[in-house]
Amino acid sequence: MISLGKVAVLSVLQTEAEEISLLEQSLALGYKVYKGKVGSMDSAKIFAAVETAAKREGFIGSHYREEHALYHSILEAYQGICRGNAGLGNVLRSAGLLYSIVRGTRAAGCADDGEWIAVALYGYMGAPMKGFEHEVLGLGMNPI
Amino acid sequence: MISLGKVAVLSVLQTEAEEISLLEQSLALGYKVYKGKVGSMDSAKIFAAVETAAKREGFIGSHYREEHALYHSILEAYQGICRGNAGLGNVLRSAGLLYSIVRGTRAAGCADDGEWIAVALYGYMGAPMKGFEHEVLGLGMNPI
Amino acid sequence: MISLGKVAVLSVLQTEAEEISLLEQSLALGYKVYKGKVGSMDSAKIFAAVETAAKREGFIGSHYREEHALYHSILEAYQGICRGNAGLGNVLRSAGLLYSIVRGTRAAGCADDGEWIAVALYGYMGAPMKGFEHEVLGLGMNPI
Amino acid sequence: MISLGKVAVLSVLQTEAEEISLLEQSLALGYKVYKGKVGSMDSAKIFAAVETAAKREGFIGSHYREEHALYHSILEAYQGICRGNAGLGNVLRSAGLLYSIVRGTRAAGCADDGEWIAVALYGYMGAPMKGFEHEVLGLGMNPI
Amino acid sequence: MISLGKVAVLSVLQTEAEEISLLEQSLALGYKVYKGKVGSMDSAKIFAAVETAAKREGFIGSHYREEHALYHSILEAYQGICRGNAGLGNVLRSAGLLYSIVRGTRAAGCADDGEWIAVALYGYMGAPMKGFEHEVLGLGMNPI
Amino acid sequence: MISLGKVAVLSVLQTEAEEISLLEQSLALGYKVYKGKVGSMDSAKIFAAVETAAKREGFIGSHYREEHALYHSILEAYQGICRGNAGLGNVLRSAGLLYSIVRGTRAAGCADDGEWIAVALYGYMGAPMKGFEHEVLGLGMNPI
Repeated sequence: MISLGKVAVLSVLQTEAEEISLLEQSLALGYKVYKGKVGSMDSAKIFAAVETAAKREGFIGSHYREEHALYHSILEAYQGICRGNAGLGNVLRSAGLLYSIVRGTRAAGCADDGEWIAVALYGYMGAPMKGFEHEVLGLGMNPI
Repeated sequence: MISLGKVAVLSVLQTEAEEISLLEQSLALGYKVYKGKVGSMDSAKIFAAVETAAKREGFIGSHYREEHALYHSILEAYQGICRGNAGLGNVLRSAGLLYSIVRGTRAAGCADDGEWIAVALYGYMGAPMKGFEHEVLGLGMNPI
Repeated sequence: MISLGKVAVLSVLQTEAEEISLLEQSLALGYKVYKGKVGSMDSAKIFAAVETAAKREGFIGSHYREEHALYHSILEAYQGICRGNAGLGNVLRSAGLLYSIVRGTRAAGCADDGEWIAVALYGYMGAPMKGFEHEVLGLGMNPI
Repeated sequence: MISLGKVAVLSVLQTEAEEISLLEQSLALGYKVYKGKVGSMDSAKIFAAVETAAKREGFIGSHYREEHALYHSILEAYQGICRGNAGLGNVLRSAGLLYSIVRGTRAAGCADDGEWIAVALYGYMGAPMKGFEHEVLGLGMNPI
Repeated sequence: MISLGKVAVLSVLQTEAEEISLLEQSLALGYKVYKGKVGSMDSAKIFAAVETAAKREGFIGSHYREEHALYHSILEAYQGICRGNAGLGNVLRSAGLLYSIVRGTRAAGCADDGEWIAVALYGYMGAPMKGFEHEVLGLGMNPI
Repeated sequence: MISLGKVAVLSVLQTEAEEISLLEQSLALGYKVYKGKVGSMDSAKIFAAVETAAKREGFIGSHYREEHALYHSILEAYQGICRGNAGLGNVLRSAGLLYSIVRGTRAAGCADDGEWIAVALYGYMGAPMKGFEHEVLGLGMNPI
């Protein structure tokens, strides 16, 4: 069954062909989906990339409560990729990530709990040296 | 491209049909995969379920260094689902999870960095009350 | 100026006379306020006390998104009293607390960002030994 | 009843008139109180502002043990406003704060446990964008 | 040069012969030293063992400020052995530890900053299975 | 009995004469040991100093899995000196440290669990002001 978190995570994990098919299903079920890319040793740049995309693509409206829900979803996904040791450059590591932003119901077709927003971060984290890195994944979501 | 983390995460996310196809590809590329289920308000039970399965299914040998790699992979995945606030019952929340254990190379076909072990946790976390929960996902991996 | 956080914190800090006057002002500005008491070495009991009161007193409706906002407000206030070292009995300390729950606008009269819910925890934390404790205070809030 | 933490928190929360009355009561009970203002995305600036004021206003003497007590009180208050996710600019958020420093007995009139120092931080934290922020409050104290 | 932290750490690390010689030097320099043993999956037992020994052996007096200094020294040493993931049984691991408590000046002969108290924890942490564990060490200290 | 962690910690704690004797014993038991010095308010510099020395001195080979084991050992030692509040300059404090890197068996003569790598950090942390600092110690180790 399709759900908010699955759409967010599969969007950043799948090959192009699978992703297009997922996107079609997701749209049909009312999910709004965006996928982008960001890499940095500066954690603030990850937050900025997702926030900017979310505003530009119309995922959040002009009220603080929507920005707050988005922000906490990014923060939770960021904690997920950091796995208990928050930080990038300050602990001499770097991240190269794909991110997705999804807005819709918690589970497909369950409209009575309103809309939620999810952020997934997937990619590689490691030493600032080519190939010295491994996969990381984080997922955060909040009601919006 | 198939990689250790993708196999671990897709194993816990996909429908049965997609999962079988993933499993076939993964085996052909030398990945050993196991998937199980655990739910609790007691975080130690999640660690115990994954450790027990990993030993029983032959993912780790009899040396501490292998158990250490597995343990830290579970711990990192657990931090991922907790998103910055480690704890379940002590902060009055519960988790119902699928987990996967995968052993193989970091990326398919790249044997020169040896074997790694990955643990993915996916499911629902929330109040100990039916339906009052949302999706969470954590991924951890270490060389073994 | 009256605001959500001030109402929550002043409710748990003030003497009876000041509190009654604050309550009158708060009600006039549309704030719903509740104040209770909880003490324990078991952190889950603090969460349970506030959740139970919030439901019984009608602070949250029957949807998960409202319970989620309340839960995260409690969690943030709890982190505030723990000051970087989450835990009570597990680190051999105990808390005796007053708590308040407030629902209303972020600032008095600013209805365009909708309603938020705040939780304040104030009291004493310390060794499980009379008088061996000092004041702690935590505040959390989320849109609801 | 007046106590160290209450003086610290009420100093940063109250209106001017109430604050003056609190200050008079506090002084009569032997509390030394200072209130200042600091805003930044750089967390070190918050520490520096409070430390500098405390030295300039004579809250701490020239021994390290006094600076240590002050520092840990700031650190605890800072953890309180961060609520489990330490950081400001690195997680793309900013804080505009009032702070208070109070030195005196844990409870008014209880001189036998000596003097303690408390730091309260109160204000707004949020996106670096006007109005996109909510109230936060932190309190820390240590024997001095 | 002898210092508070060195005395605490060497007490839990050295062989009997070296320890006796260290103890003699430490006593001559005014350090009070105690060494004990505790093992558990329950972190509260570690705190209780050190607190009980400190009281029984006269390391702290009857005021809360002394207990507070001791408590925070234990908490810091405990964070040191946990290395960023606080917890024992809740994350399915166990610790077998030697602990030392030392009271004296920060550096030998430097009396002008008064007395401090240090706690060192050293031993093995790991799976609750013989031999599946490695060394850990934590040190905390505070003015008293 | 000599063990990996003891060699790492004693290397950064002992006087020159004791250290030379320790080094001789350690080498005879197959331990490779290096000791260096680093001081900074920028935590990344501590990671960089240890990583650079470890590569230059041949503690790790050219595979990521070895760098990963080293990195996590530094990270754990760093968490140990930070004692629950990760950060240096961002929380206005500085560290002046000796570090040691040790590679060998977990316990002397126990070759069947293979080689591990340990990092110890010892020195002073405190306000960026001469003499306003106290001892800290952290130890981390991982199989390599």
